[in-house]
Amino acid sequence: MAERIVIIAGSPGAGKSTIIKELARRSKCSIANVGSLMLEHAKARGYAADRDAVRYLPGKIISELRAQALSAINQMPGNVLLDTHASVGENGRYIPGLPIDTLKELKNVSGLVYIDAVTEDIIERRRKDPHRKRENEDDYMVNEQRIINMSMLSIASSHLNVPLFIVLNRQGRLEECISEIEKRFSELVI
Amino acid sequence: MAERIVIIAGSPGAGKSTIIKELARRSKCSIANVGSLMLEHAKARGYAADRDAVRYLPGKIISELRAQALSAINQMPGNVLLDTHASVGENGRYIPGLPIDTLKELKNVSGLVYIDAVTEDIIERRRKDPHRKRENEDDYMVNEQRIINMSMLSIASSHLNVPLFIVLNRQGRLEECISEIEKRFSELVI
Amino acid sequence: MAERIVIIAGSPGAGKSTIIKELARRSKCSIANVGSLMLEHAKARGYAADRDAVRYLPGKIISELRAQALSAINQMPGNVLLDTHASVGENGRYIPGLPIDTLKELKNVSGLVYIDAVTEDIIERRRKDPHRKRENEDDYMVNEQRIINMSMLSIASSHLNVPLFIVLNRQGRLEECISEIEKRFSELVI
Repeated sequence: MAERIVIIAGSPGAGKSTIIKELARRSKCSIANVGSLMLEHAKARGYAADRDAVRYLPGKIISELRAQALSAINQMPGNVLLDTHASVGENGRYIPGLPIDTLKELKNVSGLVYIDAVTEDIIERRRKDPHRKRENEDDYMVNEQRIINMSMLSIASSHLNVPLFIVLNRQGRLEECISEIEKRFSELVI
Repeated sequence: MAERIVIIAGSPGAGKSTIIKELARRSKCSIANVGSLMLEHAKARGYAADRDAVRYLPGKIISELRAQALSAINQMPGNVLLDTHASVGENGRYIPGLPIDTLKELKNVSGLVYIDAVTEDIIERRRKDPHRKRENEDDYMVNEQRIINMSMLSIASSHLNVPLFIVLNRQGRLEECISEIEKRFSELVI
Repeated sequence: MAERIVIIAGSPGAGKSTIIKELARRSKCSIANVGSLMLEHAKARGYAADRDAVRYLPGKIISELRAQALSAINQMPGNVLLDTHASVGENGRYIPGLPIDTLKELKNVSGLVYIDAVTEDIIERRRKDPHRKRENEDDYMVNEQRIINMSMLSIASSHLNVPLFIVLNRQGRLEECISEIEKRFSELVI
């Protein structure tokens, strides 16, 4: 059973993946990627062949896949960095990434981390991503997603009664961002 | 009993009523207006004679009226568009429109839609509304209400484990907004 | 047992303490300061000697101290203004001030008040506060804290099914802000 789980979510385009990999290396935690686990289950059942297809499955199937993924995570040994989304958002559609019922299935969560970036940096990074489908992404949309994500994480923090850390990954200051999260880790994973 | 309920909330001044009427016509869903049902119950009990008076009733009575309205909605046949507020807000006072306890009374909710507009459009439309009482409405206030409404909808989405759609009704682009919601309806009402 | 409890939270730097003292004087309510009660319990157990030290205790101990404080508040006679935080935030770390489990321990809550200020006023006031540790506080950070606090209060409002009031304390208009809250009090404490 997982000793301690730190849930890490992030604004798309804020650099979450890079940060989690480096954090896991430094803090000797395992990484559990909810999206990858969900894709595995989706493939096994013939629901979807890639991540994009998972994203557009009906809400009920997404919830089912997520419940299975979280259950597997509880069984992982040691400390776990749970790489997930506060909400799975695409084109103004937000599926809760940590809904109340599946949230209750996660044991030993010690904290939540949200990796954000300033609006201009997010827009800039997304513009360079050839996989993004949403057009004309602007200030309103980035702010909309920030509010939804912060709300979803506040709900999780309030229900689990654990701290929420919001870390800003400013352009060109990745190391500063990683160190800031690392400093918090003594509270979260010891 | 309602087959599927889609909850539709909106920022006041975002054009919700117009959009819901057109959506109901195209998708052949019934409309249930929580405010109208609450007013009916309020009139029957002599609590209030019009909508504005309902808004200023004590919080406890508002909750009671809402519970009765939601219970009636569960009994409606077919697919239902539930026209409601994420929060009933006036002059900085927000009554939760979908509080946890009444939320649990709603059966078969398949999704939530929030109709928003950009801040300048909202201020412009409210300025033209002779019924609005709040003076000097500004950026701060519109943003305050947006955060509260998006939080309230995130709570509902997280508890019901259903998707939340945020649709922007940009000035002069009503048809685009309606089509965007309509496209989502195959997921929500079939 | 407390007859009615009004929970008052505020953005740090929005002038909450001054406002609560004046409100208590005018409305003849007692003040219960969750932070002070938590500090008393922390001192009695040798956990911390001052407020700053409480803030940096492990999340689990903070939760325990809060539960004890809230339990004492339920025993207070008459109407109570509960002076607390929506989230205890410092350097991007937010501990829920009203988490779901302790929220359920509070009886007779009749409403929530959030005292906010416009971003520039908050930055200006915090700059003058020699106790603030967070450097380079800027628009992003004030907005981040506003979203978290409003989300946390929306969660409390939705769970307790009570109204949330957001009051803006504009620079140089303190009396206006206090009067605005006072007007609401007939609904909340009678």
